Amino acid sequence: VSLIFFASDFGPGSEYVGTCHAVIAGIAPATRVIDLTHSLAPFDVAGAAAVLADVLPFAPPAIAVLVVDPGVGSLRRAIALRCNRGDVLVGPDNGLLTTVARMLGGVVEARELNETRYHGVALSSTFHARDIFCPVAAHLSAGVPFERIGSVLDPAGLVAPFRWRLEVAAGCVRCEVSNIDRFGNVRLSAKAEVLTAAGLDECRTFRLALSDGTASVRRVRTYEDLADGEVGLVEDSFGWLCLVENRASASERLRLTRGAHVELAG
Amino acid sequence: VSLIFFASDFGPGSEYVGTCHAVIAGIAPATRVIDLTHSLAPFDVAGAAAVLADVLPFAPPAIAVLVVDPGVGSLRRAIALRCNRGDVLVGPDNGLLTTVARMLGGVVEARELNETRYHGVALSSTFHARDIFCPVAAHLSAGVPFERIGSVLDPAGLVAPFRWRLEVAAGCVRCEVSNIDRFGNVRLSAKAEVLTAAGLDECRTFRLALSDGTASVRRVRTYEDLADGEVGLVEDSFGWLCLVENRASASERLRLTRGAHVELAG
Amino acid sequence: VSLIFFASDFGPGSEYVGTCHAVIAGIAPATRVIDLTHSLAPFDVAGAAAVLADVLPFAPPAIAVLVVDPGVGSLRRAIALRCNRGDVLVGPDNGLLTTVARMLGGVVEARELNETRYHGVALSSTFHARDIFCPVAAHLSAGVPFERIGSVLDPAGLVAPFRWRLEVAAGCVRCEVSNIDRFGNVRLSAKAEVLTAAGLDECRTFRLALSDGTASVRRVRTYEDLADGEVGLVEDSFGWLCLVENRASASERLRLTRGAHVELAG
Repeated sequence: VSLIFFASDFGPGSEYVGTCHAVIAGIAPATRVIDLTHSLAPFDVAGAAAVLADVLPFAPPAIAVLVVDPGVGSLRRAIALRCNRGDVLVGPDNGLLTTVARMLGGVVEARELNETRYHGVALSSTFHARDIFCPVAAHLSAGVPFERIGSVLDPAGLVAPFRWRLEVAAGCVRCEVSNIDRFGNVRLSAKAEVLTAAGLDECRTFRLALSDGTASVRRVRTYEDLADGEVGLVEDSFGWLCLVENRASASERLRLTRGAHVELAG
Repeated sequence: VSLIFFASDFGPGSEYVGTCHAVIAGIAPATRVIDLTHSLAPFDVAGAAAVLADVLPFAPPAIAVLVVDPGVGSLRRAIALRCNRGDVLVGPDNGLLTTVARMLGGVVEARELNETRYHGVALSSTFHARDIFCPVAAHLSAGVPFERIGSVLDPAGLVAPFRWRLEVAAGCVRCEVSNIDRFGNVRLSAKAEVLTAAGLDECRTFRLALSDGTASVRRVRTYEDLADGEVGLVEDSFGWLCLVENRASASERLRLTRGAHVELAG
Repeated sequence: VSLIFFASDFGPGSEYVGTCHAVIAGIAPATRVIDLTHSLAPFDVAGAAAVLADVLPFAPPAIAVLVVDPGVGSLRRAIALRCNRGDVLVGPDNGLLTTVARMLGGVVEARELNETRYHGVALSSTFHARDIFCPVAAHLSAGVPFERIGSVLDPAGLVAPFRWRLEVAAGCVRCEVSNIDRFGNVRLSAKAEVLTAAGLDECRTFRLALSDGTASVRRVRTYEDLADGEVGLVEDSFGWLCLVENRASASERLRLTRGAHVELAG
């Protein structure tokens, strides 16, 4: 079975998502499409990159159309990246795909999607997921070789992967909020192992410095270890340090949004 | 592979959507169901018609269950329309299906869904998507001929397609807001070509008259052509004139909602 | 075709949902996954149980992963229940699965998911849907026998099914709000038949006592029977009494939320 993963900032249940599914079904009727997420924050390329770099390693190697594309219709290129693990990522050249590719063994070969025979019937300046990315992905899934979809690009010329703020000093970790989920869990741009580098392995209670105040958070293993209204620091399911509450929203209590700077001290 | 497209105002991720998928899987296990959208505004039949009339032409001909149905359980009929392009549209007779059918070559044959052997196990007065539309669509996808699902209807007796406000005069286009998407893009009920009819082909900056004020908008090709905070007029991916901002919401800035009257002048 | 139903409180379009789909696709590529809903209210196990106990009887017997799991990572067990109807329910032991199983003929056999060879590649303390429930479901769908996934549990030792408030007296029904849908329809924890038991069969207008006031509601068959702004009492599509308006939100007008106590009197 041919398989395409699909992620975007189009919004869950959006007709833009449905239109893309319909276009793929028209080109490659036997291909299965699995939605990874369509709740990515509108226009937020770096935020999407953080989320998808975590998710794709849990998926089997396949074709993936990844679209957060505020520059659609401008000079930014439409590209496909063949990754070392076997995946082919399709989308805009704005740092989203290169960030994800880094987690899939890196880029083996890059192509610009300039072979218009594999594009859709319409060409708009605002909806390249429908007109370019999904048609190309569908043709690939139906057997068109990667080499045919456009001309070779030098991977070194692609928009570079995103990097998140992370400074580790003795007794202190400075990072940023890389994601906030539906439950209000606040993901930080620091893996649990940086606490070792900071000499904070044994620390059970951290001082949290935010732009508008401080708080005290207790290191715990799971939500239920927390008292009502208490904020805790857990290692989340993707290995990141994460500020959480038990059955409540830590992001609301701490008034944190994506990109906010956070300092953890012992 | 048999294919059913499904669109509704049930809300993304709603259990009503899932129940319909489950009912189809019970009747026609080999049929694939593709969600076109479930984010249609609750109760808004005309708004749904505008969206789906744009989307279905991008889909391959198939069976489509289209449900925005505030009159469910009343005397409004349950119908299926065979369209010239080969599609079969299933849903309520409230103008939604006839509006979409107009974009698929028009209605070849209409049937009332009164053959109850193809309905579901329950019959409620509030959920005909589960009890009538999806079961009939599933039976059709499993091979039941169109002629069996109910008695013939005269297409002339169906609720007429929706029409949107559009007046074109020299130097002026009067229309309405037909849709607002997740990004705050404001779709107007005027295709880009009406600007030719209005003699506004060469116009680069338009005066926009709204119910509560005026604004100036610049004609651009893509979002990135706009300065921060500037509202532009683009031809969107379905050919409509659309008021947009770059990485921000034009609908919020202009305080526009669906159905609002808009006048564009040179 | 092997089939897994999937429901959660992860939010529609969430990357958590997509990650679970991806994990299943990696283990059981031929298995089809149908989302029942991902809009269940965060952390609300009882609310989810009410919704899913209604939905599953409309689905064909299959494997179902049902996840609202605020106790993830704590001592609560991961379980699978084989039901009399043939379904296998997979998820946390917190009352959600036992409530649903009651509607599927009851539990035939229960297993604890402690055979780690059928778990995923990661084991987090916060995302057992990805690490345990979906991998086990995928292996089951790919042919692993139910007896292999872990040790037998005494069904009597499982967390008991939820029960909703329902008191029926002559001329009076006391119940609670068990669900509120996208349209603002307010589902009560009383089936239409309890009106017979209360001697209220012939009653056309009910007095509604809420925690902060009273209202008068008219018994009707369908939304369109109501005047603008009037609240009605219908039998909804799952047999429950439901407070509704025509093309408007009864929950907003009555300011009702899930769990609120409601008294209906003749």
